[in-house]
Amino acid sequence: MNYVHIVAALAIFQFIFFGVKVGQARGKYNVAAPATSGHDMFDRAFRIHMNTLEQLVGFLPALFMASVYWSNAYIAMIGAVYIVGRFVYQKSYLADPKKRSLGFALTILPTFVLLVAAIAGAMMN
Amino acid sequence: MNYVHIVAALAIFQFIFFGVKVGQARGKYNVAAPATSGHDMFDRAFRIHMNTLEQLVGFLPALFMASVYWSNAYIAMIGAVYIVGRFVYQKSYLADPKKRSLGFALTILPTFVLLVAAIAGAMMN
Amino acid sequence: MNYVHIVAALAIFQFIFFGVKVGQARGKYNVAAPATSGHDMFDRAFRIHMNTLEQLVGFLPALFMASVYWSNAYIAMIGAVYIVGRFVYQKSYLADPKKRSLGFALTILPTFVLLVAAIAGAMMN
Repeated sequence: MNYVHIVAALAIFQFIFFGVKVGQARGKYNVAAPATSGHDMFDRAFRIHMNTLEQLVGFLPALFMASVYWSNAYIAMIGAVYIVGRFVYQKSYLADPKKRSLGFALTILPTFVLLVAAIAGAMMN
Repeated sequence: MNYVHIVAALAIFQFIFFGVKVGQARGKYNVAAPATSGHDMFDRAFRIHMNTLEQLVGFLPALFMASVYWSNAYIAMIGAVYIVGRFVYQKSYLADPKKRSLGFALTILPTFVLLVAAIAGAMMN
Repeated sequence: MNYVHIVAALAIFQFIFFGVKVGQARGKYNVAAPATSGHDMFDRAFRIHMNTLEQLVGFLPALFMASVYWSNAYIAMIGAVYIVGRFVYQKSYLADPKKRSLGFALTILPTFVLLVAAIAGAMMN
């Protein structure tokens, strides 16, 4: 069982889910496309989605590269922290944008660990 | 012949092409960088590019993962639907942002199918 | 030693670094989340980060695909041009958004070369 691929696919589904939330916020707070702001709660949903995009772009390649050199199950566990961290980020950002730090740390740290693991693996091989 | 890689490379070229269109719209509608809005037609070109960015981030890893477990040619065909769907999305968004749903569906659905194929393959292997 | 993975990891670190710069600019120029503009220097930092996001999404898969068919060290060298080009882009964009063309060319051209190399490799294999 390729746990890393399952975590990667779930992280993409999570990102799509945050995008669906943006679409719902468009209707709820009356912000028609192509506008990307107009109501504070819409802006929060939009920023959660965008920030997850920014994180995903680094997280997925880091996850794939690290899994070339290290145990699939361990790398997948680090990846699972990212997914949980993103939900924490979403919840706290919606409650109060100023409280987004913990969730942010829980997703940037796994990416850092994976990048260091990838570089270490790439240098030893 | 690795059809999946050819589809992936074409999807990236398509995304760069949408970016070129944003650059042209900057000149045509007088929206100088770093501004990211200012004229409705510029906004549409900008949103087409951004939405394709959001989709590509999920589509490419899903394509690569699914191709690990399933026939390269079949996976590439699903990927080709994504590319056609993005052009439909572009055309309809430029005509009227409210009519972007079909093109959107034609690109999010292939990604969904690829993600499910990737998870199924990852669980069976 | 997998040079391509090292270059890929460094490109992701560079992108995270540009994101840190956006966070710092939020404080310095008083642009609180979820706002994404409000001061010209903040806007520049924000656009550097976003443009790097747009480039990274094409660059990394192109790098990985090309390295399947061609010499790891040569592909990594093309990737290194991208990283240097991004720093040139950052520096010139901060100085004057109108002077961002050279840095932009130095990052889009390596991606083009990698994409052509990937397609050529995919067709010959």
